[in-house]
Amino acid sequence: MTDTVLSSATREVVIGFERPFTVIGERINPTGRKLLAAEMAAGDMSRVQADALAQVAAGAMMLDVNAGIPLADEPRILAETIRLVQSLTDVPLSIDSSIVAALEAGLAAYKGRPLVNSVTGEEERLEAVLPLVKKYDAAVIAISNDETGISEDPDVRFAVAKKIVERAQDHGIKPADVVVDPLVMPVGALNEAGLAAFRIVRRLREELKVNTCCGASNISFGLPNRHGMNAAFLSMAIGAGMTSAIMNPLRTEEMAAVMGADVLMGHDPNCARWIRRFREPAPEGAASGEGRRENRRRRAAAAPG
Amino acid sequence: MTDTVLSSATREVVIGFERPFTVIGERINPTGRKLLAAEMAAGDMSRVQADALAQVAAGAMMLDVNAGIPLADEPRILAETIRLVQSLTDVPLSIDSSIVAALEAGLAAYKGRPLVNSVTGEEERLEAVLPLVKKYDAAVIAISNDETGISEDPDVRFAVAKKIVERAQDHGIKPADVVVDPLVMPVGALNEAGLAAFRIVRRLREELKVNTCCGASNISFGLPNRHGMNAAFLSMAIGAGMTSAIMNPLRTEEMAAVMGADVLMGHDPNCARWIRRFREPAPEGAASGEGRRENRRRRAAAAPG
Repeated sequence: MTDTVLSSATREVVIGFERPFTVIGERINPTGRKLLAAEMAAGDMSRVQADALAQVAAGAMMLDVNAGIPLADEPRILAETIRLVQSLTDVPLSIDSSIVAALEAGLAAYKGRPLVNSVTGEEERLEAVLPLVKKYDAAVIAISNDETGISEDPDVRFAVAKKIVERAQDHGIKPADVVVDPLVMPVGALNEAGLAAFRIVRRLREELKVNTCCGASNISFGLPNRHGMNAAFLSMAIGAGMTSAIMNPLRTEEMAAVMGADVLMGHDPNCARWIRRFREPAPEGAASGEGRRENRRRRAAAAPG
Repeated sequence: MTDTVLSSATREVVIGFERPFTVIGERINPTGRKLLAAEMAAGDMSRVQADALAQVAAGAMMLDVNAGIPLADEPRILAETIRLVQSLTDVPLSIDSSIVAALEAGLAAYKGRPLVNSVTGEEERLEAVLPLVKKYDAAVIAISNDETGISEDPDVRFAVAKKIVERAQDHGIKPADVVVDPLVMPVGALNEAGLAAFRIVRRLREELKVNTCCGASNISFGLPNRHGMNAAFLSMAIGAGMTSAIMNPLRTEEMAAVMGADVLMGHDPNCARWIRRFREPAPEGAASGEGRRENRRRRAAAAPG
């Protein structure tokens, strides 16, 4: 049993083998969101606020915060965004940047124990990020690529993950504080991507005894009905032992796939969370009225199902 | 690798470890459908015809046919229904009855190699059904309960399945022609039902080397959002090695869960079936126009997804 304990000033969340799957909301990220990038660069944080609140309302247990805006002062903006998000919600955060100075600014601004997103197996990154993780007593996402890039061979990706976990230990960071992202490939490009992901997740859990994370939507890149594919992937990955994902909690299909898998893994006692969620109108339904109608119909048809 | 080969007069379907999951349409069954029961008893087969065609159009690879109408002449009606369905579609059928005389009438009427649904571990059923399966060179669904009822202990259900497989061999029926239904319990009543189902499916596959089947909607009995729960269960069961289910192919959520799992298991080369299905309007959308709109929106948003 491996527990990765994260916290805000007032709330603890544990990523763990015998815990409900940890949904980390992905929306506060200007990458590919031009409007959000422009607003954040100009100091307009209204969309960040709305995204933070909506994701938590939809069931995110943590939020990823990224401020990667080209030519902007990323360390300052990331620190400000983190302070803002922590003033709005009490879920722990994942501090997301490829710039070490931004990670450090985010860590200095953060209250509680965050997840650092991320370190890779590249020498330079290992030696820059791991000391920071240790200094701030944080946990870290380890992405299983190195100087040679991302291997298509899951055994190579496993070996990179192992190297990062060992190096973290050299820096005084416990394996339980390293959450490995085994790098899920798009199944539209690589037919074995699903099987490879499930196999590497099982190995990471059984051999390295670490928690795992992924960007859940990678799997469906380039395919139609991405949300349907993401949902199938999430349920199966949880069955294989995956313990967290950076994903969009506003998508009902994916959230149902995660919450259903939690029930089926025995991680939702008496189905209490499932029943609470699906007896109430879903968040987007509350706005449009559609969810409420659907819910009423569902209740009427409940007995025969 | 285990293959259960079924056929109609002109088409073969194989349930197998390295095959796409076999969806067996459940709709032609008057149990709990009063209108259908009354129509079938009165010789009105219009709804049976519509159900047969709609299920095949929606992706059913086989159809279950049941004519269990109280006080009706079930052997005659079952045989007639089978002749009718075989005149409309070329998918192989599962002949479904708890009455041995009806199974025999159905087998006599059937063209090809059907699945007999079902035998249990009860002495009387074993000795009545297995000789019929052998006589007609059919395959059979083995339901893992016996005279003592349905055990909540998955190891007991495994033992019953093992007994049926052995008894079938005594009757000259190969294990590959026995498809075991491990009896999925409602997870709302029994919290470990999901884990138990996945474990027994794995054991049936690894130890007995048999194909498996289930009534997919049992898992969600009594819960809200049954289709969401069924979808999560189906994806995870396929990940655990389940190879077929009797289910409603008209439900888009469940079908996407099955087809997505097939992709992720490497059983849909180049995602060809997934792309074909989700690039076209879904069957119910073709009627309402809703699927078509949704599809257009989806296509427009395909790149960023």
